Amino acid sequence: MPDGRNIGCGKLICASSAESSDILYASGFNAADEFLYFELNGKRTAVVSPLEFQRARSEVHEDVGVMDSTDIAREFPREERQQPLALLVSRKCGVTRWLVPGSFPLGLAEKLRAAGVETVPVSDDFFPERAVKTEREIGFIRESMAATEEAMHQVESFLRESKIRTDGMLELNGQILLCEWIRSEVEAEFKRKGFSASRTIIACGPDASAPHCIGSGPVRAGEPLVADIFPRSDRTGYWGDMTRTFVKGKASPVVLRAFQAVKNASEEVLKVLKPGRPGSDYHALAAKVLESAGFRTVRGADGIPRGFFHGLGHGVGLDIHENPRLSPSGSTILEPGHVVSVEPGLYDPAWGGIRLEDLVVIRADGCENFCTMPKELEIP
Amino acid sequence: MPDGRNIGCGKLICASSAESSDILYASGFNAADEFLYFELNGKRTAVVSPLEFQRARSEVHEDVGVMDSTDIAREFPREERQQPLALLVSRKCGVTRWLVPGSFPLGLAEKLRAAGVETVPVSDDFFPERAVKTEREIGFIRESMAATEEAMHQVESFLRESKIRTDGMLELNGQILLCEWIRSEVEAEFKRKGFSASRTIIACGPDASAPHCIGSGPVRAGEPLVADIFPRSDRTGYWGDMTRTFVKGKASPVVLRAFQAVKNASEEVLKVLKPGRPGSDYHALAAKVLESAGFRTVRGADGIPRGFFHGLGHGVGLDIHENPRLSPSGSTILEPGHVVSVEPGLYDPAWGGIRLEDLVVIRADGCENFCTMPKELEIP
Repeated sequence: MPDGRNIGCGKLICASSAESSDILYASGFNAADEFLYFELNGKRTAVVSPLEFQRARSEVHEDVGVMDSTDIAREFPREERQQPLALLVSRKCGVTRWLVPGSFPLGLAEKLRAAGVETVPVSDDFFPERAVKTEREIGFIRESMAATEEAMHQVESFLRESKIRTDGMLELNGQILLCEWIRSEVEAEFKRKGFSASRTIIACGPDASAPHCIGSGPVRAGEPLVADIFPRSDRTGYWGDMTRTFVKGKASPVVLRAFQAVKNASEEVLKVLKPGRPGSDYHALAAKVLESAGFRTVRGADGIPRGFFHGLGHGVGLDIHENPRLSPSGSTILEPGHVVSVEPGLYDPAWGGIRLEDLVVIRADGCENFCTMPKELEIP
Repeated sequence: MPDGRNIGCGKLICASSAESSDILYASGFNAADEFLYFELNGKRTAVVSPLEFQRARSEVHEDVGVMDSTDIAREFPREERQQPLALLVSRKCGVTRWLVPGSFPLGLAEKLRAAGVETVPVSDDFFPERAVKTEREIGFIRESMAATEEAMHQVESFLRESKIRTDGMLELNGQILLCEWIRSEVEAEFKRKGFSASRTIIACGPDASAPHCIGSGPVRAGEPLVADIFPRSDRTGYWGDMTRTFVKGKASPVVLRAFQAVKNASEEVLKVLKPGRPGSDYHALAAKVLESAGFRTVRGADGIPRGFFHGLGHGVGLDIHENPRLSPSGSTILEPGHVVSVEPGLYDPAWGGIRLEDLVVIRADGCENFCTMPKELEIP
């Protein structure tokens, strides 16, 4: 008969909230420094340094207990207190085997193993329930998306209010409009609203053909500008994510064609996106629309890929990229409460890039789009 | 005789730059998504997704090669391409044993092990040379500290320009001065300058007694306000870190005494800080100064610690907290090029907290302080 102490399996995480959204999800505590979280016999506990003790007590989820790491150390003889906190906790609780996330640090795992405590990595998601958002979480994402759309309107108005110089560059309030300036204005405004954004993509012309290039230098009329904006709420930890592509003035024929193809791909997917099929189906649909429009995905002799060479979308929550995926390998069957981006794109160093990204929540009979901003390319 | 292929030990990291400053340090490539970096036979290589290929090629350190992960997968039969990239790279290079950081993900390590590839975690620093900064790195930190000091002057001027209302709250431009507002203004201005700051501590009164409480609500005259400002350069990745404590109006006798004790502790340490002794010696010196001034470190019956209960300082570089430590367990002997904070503090829920933090680089015959702002408590 068990003696009330769990000598079987609990769940253990050792990480900072920055390193692991799992520990933030489970504990509710947002800390820049590493702390420890465990679940055992239905009890959930965070172990933090004395520096964080007061704050942790007021910020953790209601049913999470908080312990001071020095209190735990003090239960052991002085010469044993330098052992890893995870080991002291294991000994205190009589645990010899933990389930841990796949990201659990190997160095710590080996120290625990040497002391007789096994750590068993969970191969996929540690909290698979994270992918399905509660209405509370959907509300947090809605807040982040409202701020994201405001920022997108800000970018659009910078372009609308600027005038085209004879050399093709733009001028706003007497200054040449730079991608760096747009980025810093957008990111500064986010901080005012309690959001953090970094590496906001404001990429124009050839820069826009590398999907993660953040962009630099003058914005030029007639060239597509990709604005991919993804802030995180400082308060809730939930991300927003949205992309639009603009051309100040007139776009070239190939850019117009690419834009229309990407817009069609987005609309075709949004029309049919609903529970019951794997994410890969929607990627395939978008890829088909883009190919039918004459845009093939190839790699040039220069090693640079052209066409549609990233996944159609990804889950968004406490991580900017999380499950489920709408990619060729996205095997998760979509369910109500999944929050995913839908972001077809086309890229070519010859003319730049087009990407249009909405964020949606899967509902019982379709999907609800957090984005209301229309997809319009040219800005007069 | 070796056949030219390394069947011994290379170094391997799989992480995003956000998760691992080691991969940023080694590769020079700043990516939000996980990528792979390895050192083998004196060659350094980053393996990135096609999405990042162009950008990686232009951003990595000069001697780091870049490979496209899909190119590597394509060298294997189709049915083997779903294996972890780290395994494909190991097989391609003929490596059966890697040195990895202690933070290497256990889940991946076990997959590699099952396929005959050992990963050996390096127990302490993966790149111990990171602690000793080059003059180039010191220049980056100096830039971050210049922006940090500007922000501290901004905080001071908000307090100086506000007036004390009859209820003890402050008013600036007709608004009640809130900790949240100061934080968001400081963080917004950082973004304008190309820095990111989050969880900037602007904590007043009782909030200031919990060293990592970021603070909220109105600033009150006569209560200590701890401003702990630590931005990261978006361009270089190097952090700044600095703390000052202010009182608008007149401070109480105990706060004045605590401030003088903390200031003395800081000055005593800065006077003697130089290469040759372990960080713990300086912590002990600061603790002695604070105790001699009558401030003992204790824990109340309420579980809340009082006094000086955090380390005196920590290394700062690509991580905000890194080696060496000036803490009771800081055994690293200080060397020229170490960059460390010196931040004695005193805390008590009864009156708040005082912390004064400078950032210095250890030089051959002492230390050079990045901070020039004087340590003055009261702001009229």
